[in-house]
Amino acid sequence: MKTGTRRVYSGRVLNLDIDTVSFPDGATGELEMVRHSGASAVVPVFTASAADPEILLIRQFRHAADGPIWEIPAGRLDPGETPEACAARELTEETGEHAGRLTRLATFYTTPGFTDERIHLFVARDLVRGEHRREADEFIETRRISLSRALEMIRTGEIVDGKTIVALLFFSRFGLPV
Amino acid sequence: MKTGTRRVYSGRVLNLDIDTVSFPDGATGELEMVRHSGASAVVPVFTASAADPEILLIRQFRHAADGPIWEIPAGRLDPGETPEACAARELTEETGEHAGRLTRLATFYTTPGFTDERIHLFVARDLVRGEHRREADEFIETRRISLSRALEMIRTGEIVDGKTIVALLFFSRFGLPV
Repeated sequence: MKTGTRRVYSGRVLNLDIDTVSFPDGATGELEMVRHSGASAVVPVFTASAADPEILLIRQFRHAADGPIWEIPAGRLDPGETPEACAARELTEETGEHAGRLTRLATFYTTPGFTDERIHLFVARDLVRGEHRREADEFIETRRISLSRALEMIRTGEIVDGKTIVALLFFSRFGLPV
Repeated sequence: MKTGTRRVYSGRVLNLDIDTVSFPDGATGELEMVRHSGASAVVPVFTASAADPEILLIRQFRHAADGPIWEIPAGRLDPGETPEACAARELTEETGEHAGRLTRLATFYTTPGFTDERIHLFVARDLVRGEHRREADEFIETRRISLSRALEMIRTGEIVDGKTIVALLFFSRFGLPV
């Protein structure tokens, strides 16, 4: 249980708090906690009825990875924005595709040892092509590939982004919620 | 490309840097980057030959989630420690099980938008029971369940931890590397 908190950094993407926490045995300690507004990520599916549908991946430079990596479209929730609206907006901004239908897949904690960030996963179908509106610091290429090929990229380590691995393996295993 | 950096926080689990970065188009900007030493996580498997093996999950209180969540054993790399040694150590510390064999599954970025943390995933087999040595702030219960039951907990949202979802879906889909 949190008994106190001290904000040591307020930033653009995240805030950093040092929380004072009391543990179940009555002891207290300090925990570093990155506060994050959460994000949505979306698997764009072109042929949802097929056994091996085509999906859209993006490749963008990630400073954390010191190079470009493959991902699904994603981004942070704006203040007051719903996860579904965020998913629709980021899909269009990053790829130019508009989602005719968005279906929620799952929500997970990215790394709960030090951040409260949760990512909400969606599948986008009935896609309609438009114009992307990328932010100044986004350098993105897109590629349509089969789901089976993307899964092979997970197996071989070509795809290393956590949310992308969760989304594609989850969708492949469980399909869409009924 | 990083052209400068400023450390705004140095902590126990993480450091926070503001990096000055030049983008592919020549523009420059600042990025908040949580520096993390990386972690290992391990799927403890009791009956690796079976079609639906028993695995071990832990349930621990996570301040980030404001409650207990299901996970696989995991923890941060000590300075100079290999991912494999970390996986073996954390498994024993958190569950009391010793791994007769450790096999690497995959490595992924937890959330590359704001941290360089990578988690190295392993499967532990030939387990031998010993005594756990939990840290003061770890309050953990363990449960042996079938892999199929754990996958069902992913589908229904009872398991919400990213590394656990990646590890179990990856292991279920691809098995062990040959």
